[in-house]
Amino acid sequence: MHKISIKDVAKKANVSITAVSQILNNKGERFSEETIKKVLQARDELGYVPNSAARNLKVRHSRLIGIIVPSFRMPFFADIIQSMQDNAPEDVNLVFIGSTADNLQSSIYSLVERGVQALIFGRPIPNRDVVNAFLKKRHIPYLVLDQNADINAQDMVQTNEFTGGSLAASHLLSLGHRDIALILPNELTDNMRQRRAGFLDTLSAANVTPVSVISSALSKHGGLAVVHQLIQSQATAAFVLNDEMAIGVLRGLTWQNVKVPENMSIVGYDDTDYAEFMVPSLTTIAQPVAEIGQSALNMILQRLAHPNLPYQTAFFDVKLVVRESTAKLLLD
Amino acid sequence: MHKISIKDVAKKANVSITAVSQILNNKGERFSEETIKKVLQARDELGYVPNSAARNLKVRHSRLIGIIVPSFRMPFFADIIQSMQDNAPEDVNLVFIGSTADNLQSSIYSLVERGVQALIFGRPIPNRDVVNAFLKKRHIPYLVLDQNADINAQDMVQTNEFTGGSLAASHLLSLGHRDIALILPNELTDNMRQRRAGFLDTLSAANVTPVSVISSALSKHGGLAVVHQLIQSQATAAFVLNDEMAIGVLRGLTWQNVKVPENMSIVGYDDTDYAEFMVPSLTTIAQPVAEIGQSALNMILQRLAHPNLPYQTAFFDVKLVVRESTAKLLLD
Repeated sequence: MHKISIKDVAKKANVSITAVSQILNNKGERFSEETIKKVLQARDELGYVPNSAARNLKVRHSRLIGIIVPSFRMPFFADIIQSMQDNAPEDVNLVFIGSTADNLQSSIYSLVERGVQALIFGRPIPNRDVVNAFLKKRHIPYLVLDQNADINAQDMVQTNEFTGGSLAASHLLSLGHRDIALILPNELTDNMRQRRAGFLDTLSAANVTPVSVISSALSKHGGLAVVHQLIQSQATAAFVLNDEMAIGVLRGLTWQNVKVPENMSIVGYDDTDYAEFMVPSLTTIAQPVAEIGQSALNMILQRLAHPNLPYQTAFFDVKLVVRESTAKLLLD
Repeated sequence: MHKISIKDVAKKANVSITAVSQILNNKGERFSEETIKKVLQARDELGYVPNSAARNLKVRHSRLIGIIVPSFRMPFFADIIQSMQDNAPEDVNLVFIGSTADNLQSSIYSLVERGVQALIFGRPIPNRDVVNAFLKKRHIPYLVLDQNADINAQDMVQTNEFTGGSLAASHLLSLGHRDIALILPNELTDNMRQRRAGFLDTLSAANVTPVSVISSALSKHGGLAVVHQLIQSQATAAFVLNDEMAIGVLRGLTWQNVKVPENMSIVGYDDTDYAEFMVPSLTTIAQPVAEIGQSALNMILQRLAHPNLPYQTAFFDVKLVVRESTAKLLLD
């Protein structure tokens, strides 16, 4: 099969190769509408696809950015992804890849091979040195969200996770709770460790230690699975490190006839878009998810435009959102 | 900058070009572990990336499949995406693109330019003829999920939507409800129209017409927004065409002190992973989401292997999942 070239398009449209090139690269302002139409039509009729690599070297017009996330099922990432998608400039294409620790390197390799110009990591990078060396060598900038803690190694977007944990603790203490449980995912990312540290630190300053620390799977079912243990702990309140898990906890407590917030206060973390729709609606720590996504995208675009800028870190505040799942401790 | 070639890798590893090529294409069984290690090390040290186009033509080893969805926020698509991701063979890379009707064509163009070998559409295709011609010309097979109704035009994965709507109606009728409302998204995809038709048909066979048909945004907030209208309609039950909207309806009814299911039965559609965690848990129509994702992926891989097979349609059954949000009509 004869590979269609730009020459074929020029011949069919009866214009110069330069004209075709400029029009297809969105630099055809000086041509008449009729000429532009002729060229686009010729392109489509012939099925011409510009050579991607050559095109990127020359004009850098359509930039491809890859975003790697641990799971498409977690609303926190779904929200970040959607905010990037909604805010991407017209000449930027985003592709999203879901990746486990095992296939992360192969995912990166595949994206790079396809001509990706920059990467955003929304998941921890297990083999950090290898990945870093691989990308640096190929001059592919990358940005990490706060699942990776090593500030100043590259561009980062972070939220104040320590404060987030601390806000959860202060809220429960201020409601009179002292018998407080902490519910964690089995595997903690760097940011979750900070979240936990902020929580424990603030409890400790009030001379409180958790009556129970319970680990489970990072999912709604994982939350559901710890309800029995939570009830046995005699806690009057619990901080659940993640909204997904908290939703499972809420549902399980209802099934066990434990009233929230009358008999148990629950605080989640993330303020995913389900939190306000729960019954009772979930008190939680809100991260500005849309801003995080937008900021990450802007920062990596800036990096592509100015490769030699010093590394940047965008730092976002979190806030406590009080809803129905927390209340003052009732004295017997 | 000198572009690193396979020759450089061979020279550095002190082996033949054929050896490098076979090892990098996973066909290096006959070489010693030491040789393989030397080649991989040389590749990584030099930062060699094989020419994607050439590589695909010759070995078709890493296949790239693009999946286009309307939104990453809708759990139905998050579940389908995740099931594809979990089931993709090692040598298949999946990229996901979120696309509005406006930028759909540019998304497709960009993916094709990057060497995508096949596409799966999880959203309606507005300019169907143009897209079809564009892809056919480039010999890029595509598959549509059931947001597009034109069976036999290409490979498809469908569920029995008419039956789904019908099951919802039968369930409510069997519980004694006759004053039934229908809550719809503002914009209906082809499959939702079938869902609605199945529902209305089954009501009609029992001489029932909906007391109210209410449209709103396809979101939890959209569901929340119609609660007042639903209460005013004097309905004792409602079929909500989508779980997301149903979750909003449930939450709104609780705020208005309308008890579900005592005073109002609610049936959703999709059985997203939140349905069972609602309070009350949501009766809904389940689509086999994991199987849909897996089947779509398998079908498109088969198409890549056998381009001339007749078009296929995989057809999945749906089922009613009865939970707490529906109950027998209480007589006053």
